[in-house]
Amino acid sequence: MNIRNKLRQFQEYWKPYIVAEVNGQMVKLAKLKGEFIWHNHENEDEMFLVVKGRLRIEFRNKQVWLEEGEFIVVPRGVEHRPVAEKEAHVLLFEPASTLNTGNMQNERTRETLDRI
Amino acid sequence: MNIRNKLRQFQEYWKPYIVAEVNGQMVKLAKLKGEFIWHNHENEDEMFLVVKGRLRIEFRNKQVWLEEGEFIVVPRGVEHRPVAEKEAHVLLFEPASTLNTGNMQNERTRETLDRI
Repeated sequence: MNIRNKLRQFQEYWKPYIVAEVNGQMVKLAKLKGEFIWHNHENEDEMFLVVKGRLRIEFRNKQVWLEEGEFIVVPRGVEHRPVAEKEAHVLLFEPASTLNTGNMQNERTRETLDRI
Repeated sequence: MNIRNKLRQFQEYWKPYIVAEVNGQMVKLAKLKGEFIWHNHENEDEMFLVVKGRLRIEFRNKQVWLEEGEFIVVPRGVEHRPVAEKEAHVLLFEPASTLNTGNMQNERTRETLDRI
């Protein structure tokens, strides 16, 4: 499975695609650009691994910059907002059931994810 | 969490270190060189993501080359043997309980893993 090839198969931002499954967890890829919404995931930790570009994860009391090859695990229940000033590509590791906007619903919410 | 920095903290081959936990799954880093042993993991899928170098995963009926930025999920129960002709660095996703040598025990078996 080649991450870069998979990333060529879609362009839409903030819409994760499922690319693999490991022990009931999903490996997802997403392209991010701009500011997402503040949200949290009540029951799931969420791992972001930056495979291209850089990403800022804002928390209520701090912010963390992630460069290519860096990752963070956002623990369940912790409010966060991903911000990509320029296009960034990430690998996500989280359950299939994780809603991208967590406890929030807006026009960016994706109820179902495609597998590529 | 910077993968490259973490990889500078150890040198031993075939000894995974735990670097993070996501929903009960462990994120591990390992340096590989040479041929490992044939083994399988009865109850766990195992994901290999190559972060440096290249890796060959041998199966009984085929082999798969993984270049940097590529990954594979070896399903539970499937016999496999990782081979790195030159030093390769990988990120692994699997349960904490996964024994590196799976159903086999030899001098490379690591009963407990350190967290770095």
